[in-house]
Amino acid sequence: MLHLGFDVGGTNVAAGLVDDGYQVRFRASERFRRGCGGEGLAALLRSLSERLYAEAGLAGQEPEQVGVALPGTLDPERQTVIDAHNLDFHGVPLAALVQERFPAARVSLLNDADAATWAELLAGALRGCRSGLLLTLGTGVGGGLIFDGRLFPGGLGRGVEPGHMLLHAGGRLCSCGQRGCAERYCSARALAQAGRRAMNGDPNGLLARRAQNRPERVSAKLVMDCAKQGDPAAQAVFRDYVEELSAFLATLVNLLDPEIIALGGGLGQSGEELCGPVRELTAAKCFHKSCGRILPAALGNDAGIVGAALAGAEPDRF
Amino acid sequence: MLHLGFDVGGTNVAAGLVDDGYQVRFRASERFRRGCGGEGLAALLRSLSERLYAEAGLAGQEPEQVGVALPGTLDPERQTVIDAHNLDFHGVPLAALVQERFPAARVSLLNDADAATWAELLAGALRGCRSGLLLTLGTGVGGGLIFDGRLFPGGLGRGVEPGHMLLHAGGRLCSCGQRGCAERYCSARALAQAGRRAMNGDPNGLLARRAQNRPERVSAKLVMDCAKQGDPAAQAVFRDYVEELSAFLATLVNLLDPEIIALGGGLGQSGEELCGPVRELTAAKCFHKSCGRILPAALGNDAGIVGAALAGAEPDRF
Repeated sequence: MLHLGFDVGGTNVAAGLVDDGYQVRFRASERFRRGCGGEGLAALLRSLSERLYAEAGLAGQEPEQVGVALPGTLDPERQTVIDAHNLDFHGVPLAALVQERFPAARVSLLNDADAATWAELLAGALRGCRSGLLLTLGTGVGGGLIFDGRLFPGGLGRGVEPGHMLLHAGGRLCSCGQRGCAERYCSARALAQAGRRAMNGDPNGLLARRAQNRPERVSAKLVMDCAKQGDPAAQAVFRDYVEELSAFLATLVNLLDPEIIALGGGLGQSGEELCGPVRELTAAKCFHKSCGRILPAALGNDAGIVGAALAGAEPDRF
Repeated sequence: MLHLGFDVGGTNVAAGLVDDGYQVRFRASERFRRGCGGEGLAALLRSLSERLYAEAGLAGQEPEQVGVALPGTLDPERQTVIDAHNLDFHGVPLAALVQERFPAARVSLLNDADAATWAELLAGALRGCRSGLLLTLGTGVGGGLIFDGRLFPGGLGRGVEPGHMLLHAGGRLCSCGQRGCAERYCSARALAQAGRRAMNGDPNGLLARRAQNRPERVSAKLVMDCAKQGDPAAQAVFRDYVEELSAFLATLVNLLDPEIIALGGGLGQSGEELCGPVRELTAAKCFHKSCGRILPAALGNDAGIVGAALAGAEPDRF
C-alpha cells in the first residue's frame, strides 16, 4: 500500500508516496507561495497528489490517508495551525481545509520535527528505542522526544522546543525574544555564522579562498570541509561548535538520559564527521560520565514526508 | 495498613509509618554515622523499625513492605547503590542487606528525589497529572519527572539530574565538575551565597544586622524575610534569584511543557512567596508565552518518607 505524505516548508512543498517499507516511491514538489493561505495550500496539496498518483500509474485513485507536516505549532487536537511564522499561517483550520480536498481520506496534521522524529522511530536511527530524541540542526534547532516507545506530544500537547532551552542564559538574542537559546549556538546557521566571522579575520585563509570572500557562501558544510582539510581557523570554529553542541547534549542527557540521541537536519547529514567528536565530548560532560548512543539521523530529507505519510500508522504510539 | 519508609540523608535517617491516606502516623529518627557502611545502615533501619512498631502498639509485628530513599545513584534494578557521595556508599548491595534484616518484607530502594516526586504524584502537588516534575531546591537542585502519569526512571534507569542541566554553560564551577549547572544558580544555597555577598557589601543593612554580620547565619530564608521587610539589598538578591530560577523553569517548559511544575526542598516551603513571582516571570520567558501550573510542593519534609513507604504501592506507575 502507498501512503501520501507532504512536507510543507517556507519555500517548498515536498510530496511523496511512501510504501509499507517506509521508502519514498514517488516524489513531487512545488514552490510554496507565501500568502497563499490555508485554502491555497490545500489546493496545492490536491494538485501534487494528482501528479503523484498519475506518475505511479494510479490516476483516479484516492489516498486513504493524507499526512501534512509543517513548521509550526498546532492545537492539541492537531486540527488548526496556531502559528507557523514561515508560512504566515495563524489560526488556520488546515485539517478541515485539507479534508475538503480529500473527502475519502483520513487527514493528519503534524509538526515537521515531530514528523521527522516519528519517521526515525519507525524506520531510522531511533528504531526500537523506548527513550530517545531527534535534534534537527538546521536554520534553527528543532526536535522531538520519544518516551515509552511513543512520540511525546509535549505535556500540554503543543509539541517540544528543544532549540529554545537556554544554554547561555542572558547570551545571544534569539528570534523567540529570549537570550541564550541553544539554537543560537548549536544550529547549522550558528556554525556558518562563526565561519563568517573567522573568514573576516583571516582574509587569505582557506575559508576565504573557498568562499571567494563572500560571506553568504560560508555554510556549515564549507566550515567542516575546510576543517577537514586542515585549515586552522575552520578547525577552531568547528571545535568551538562541537563544544557548544556537546554541552547542550549533556544537558539533555542529564535530564532524560535517553537511550539514543539522533542528530538530523542539514548538519546531521555529515554523519560520523560530526557525531564522532560530539559523542566523545558529550560523555565527558555528563553527570554519569557516560551516555546513551549518539547517532546520525538515518532518513535525511525524507524524514518529514515519511513521518507525515505514516502519521496514522500506529495510533497508540503517535 | 501501615507502610514503613525511610529517608536516609547525610546526617540523619528519618523513619515513618505511613497510613493508606499517605499520612505519617509514627516517626523516629537517628543520626547517620558516615562510615557505617551498608551493614551498619541496615542494622540502624531495623532498630528504627522496632522502635516505630513498639510506639504504634504493634511490637513484634513485621512490615510487609520496606522502602528506603537515599541521595544517590542506583543501578537500574534498584538493588545496589552505585554512588551516594554524602553517605560514602559506592557499589553497596543495599537491597540485599536490608532484605536480610527484614526477611518477610518486600524491599524497595529508591533515589530520594524520585521518592519525593512519587509522593507528590500520589498525594501532593502532582496528583492526577500526566506530565509533571518536581524540583527540590535545597543544597543542590534535584527532582523527578512524570510522563504518562508514571514516574520516569531516566532512559537508562539511572534517574534524572535536572540540577546538572547547564543554564550558563562555562559559568560557575559545580561539584559535578561542569561549569554553569542550574543548581549553582537556582539552589537554596545559591540564594544564601548571594545573600552573603550582599551582606558583605552592605555591613549596616538589614541582612547584616539580622545575621549579626556572620555569613553562616545568612540562609535563603533570611534573604527572603529581609526582602519581604523591604531591604533593598535583599530584594535585589531575591529578584536575581527569581530571574535565574524562572529562566531554568522556562528551559524545562520549552522542552517538556509539563502540566505542573512543583517546587520543593527547603525553598519550596516558602510557598507562594516564591511561586508567585516565579510563575509570572517563567510564563513570560517561555516559547509559547504561557506554561502549565507552577505550585509549591505539598508534602514538605515528609515527601521522602511517604514516597519510600509507598514505593511498592502501584508497580505499574513506579
